[in-house]
Amino acid sequence: MVKKVKAALIIIGDEILSGRTHDANLNYIAKWLGDLGIILDEVRVIPDVDKRIVDTVNECRSIFDYVFTTGGIGPTHDDITAKNVAIAFGVEFLLNEEARKLLEDNMGKGNLTEARLRMAMIPEGASLIKNPVSAAPGFQMENVFVLAGIPVVMQSMLLDVEDRISGGSKISSKAIHVFEGESVFADILAEIEDHFEHLTIGSYPFYKAGSYGATFVLRSAVPQEVDQALSILKERILEQGSEIFGGEAP
Amino acid sequence: MVKKVKAALIIIGDEILSGRTHDANLNYIAKWLGDLGIILDEVRVIPDVDKRIVDTVNECRSIFDYVFTTGGIGPTHDDITAKNVAIAFGVEFLLNEEARKLLEDNMGKGNLTEARLRMAMIPEGASLIKNPVSAAPGFQMENVFVLAGIPVVMQSMLLDVEDRISGGSKISSKAIHVFEGESVFADILAEIEDHFEHLTIGSYPFYKAGSYGATFVLRSAVPQEVDQALSILKERILEQGSEIFGGEAP
Repeated sequence: MVKKVKAALIIIGDEILSGRTHDANLNYIAKWLGDLGIILDEVRVIPDVDKRIVDTVNECRSIFDYVFTTGGIGPTHDDITAKNVAIAFGVEFLLNEEARKLLEDNMGKGNLTEARLRMAMIPEGASLIKNPVSAAPGFQMENVFVLAGIPVVMQSMLLDVEDRISGGSKISSKAIHVFEGESVFADILAEIEDHFEHLTIGSYPFYKAGSYGATFVLRSAVPQEVDQALSILKERILEQGSEIFGGEAP
Repeated sequence: MVKKVKAALIIIGDEILSGRTHDANLNYIAKWLGDLGIILDEVRVIPDVDKRIVDTVNECRSIFDYVFTTGGIGPTHDDITAKNVAIAFGVEFLLNEEARKLLEDNMGKGNLTEARLRMAMIPEGASLIKNPVSAAPGFQMENVFVLAGIPVVMQSMLLDVEDRISGGSKISSKAIHVFEGESVFADILAEIEDHFEHLTIGSYPFYKAGSYGATFVLRSAVPQEVDQALSILKERILEQGSEIFGGEAP
């Protein structure tokens, strides 16, 4: 029995949408979820605008098993994620004593300025997510996990999230590639995919050093399907007189 | 008078969501739109699933001035974008004679296999978008622009899109950074932002070589606001006894 558990990621940040910053969290979270048997099923990148955060959080938390947000939980005026998650859940936005203590222990009482204290404002009823890097915590409200935007901090927070979520069937995947246009193999791929219940084959063309090639990625929650399909595919490619390359795409 | 023109980008691709591939199109399109005075206001990454493509295209095209999609227009079974854009618009999905001719001229008549001919299937009423790299065209349906997923091909298609869209007021932006926690400047940033009508200040913390720092990005459709705000901000930072670094973030 294949069980699918699906997650959405909401990346909150004008700086990604303006092109000033490259997002580094999507790929990390995608792989981390995959290892836990959770499918990242949608990503949204939205601006630092109150209503957009409220609406997107509410839409995603009703559709997906888990929702992760990154960005906007620091001490400055443009850090509006926590406040809007409180609004999305219809709960109070309050100074959290446990979070205040974490900040105080980390920074020293005298350094806990009013601006820094904003990082201890948490929606009522949330449970904190530890931040081993810089103390200011993330938090969990039901199925929504609110994380920092700085990659090193975000990654450290995931350590405290792992035990709170449970995955479905883990997806196995194997990839091979050929230095030939993918169209040559179009019918073969469709036919093999149809033959297995849970298998999907992705065909990803690439263009490298003046040559076209394609990577074929076989994925299934049933590992045997991947192995069987791969051996059929290899055979069919060799029959076409093409050469097969393994491992990562070139 | 500040005019805002907003766009959404829909990235269609299981391979991004699984973490196998890093998306390279978001950042390129964000900057390209910015140069045209168009705000990239939302990005969605969705899987290769028919209904998800139809629903997302329909939702976005009703909200945003322009919608761009990347991925899923090749010759294999998992290339389902064009078909679903036809469904979204409620039009027929037909062999486009102009597209067929482009493929034939590029590949030679004898090489135009059935699989490759799939790349000439285009929603009725669409206008083609030239692909100088590999011939197989993208297309435009009203305010929706359907582009390839391979970055070099996608980028070449944008050349044929530039004349079809018109931007609003261009956003000016300038950035400075400090090697100090952003919380120190929280009040100053909020105060300066409030002082100008169109100005937004983003504060982006970073962590580098054991030190915290923050980049402050000032953005406005009115360039004078950026210059005035920047000089006020610099003054206030120096008053705090902090050092200012210009240019790109470290």
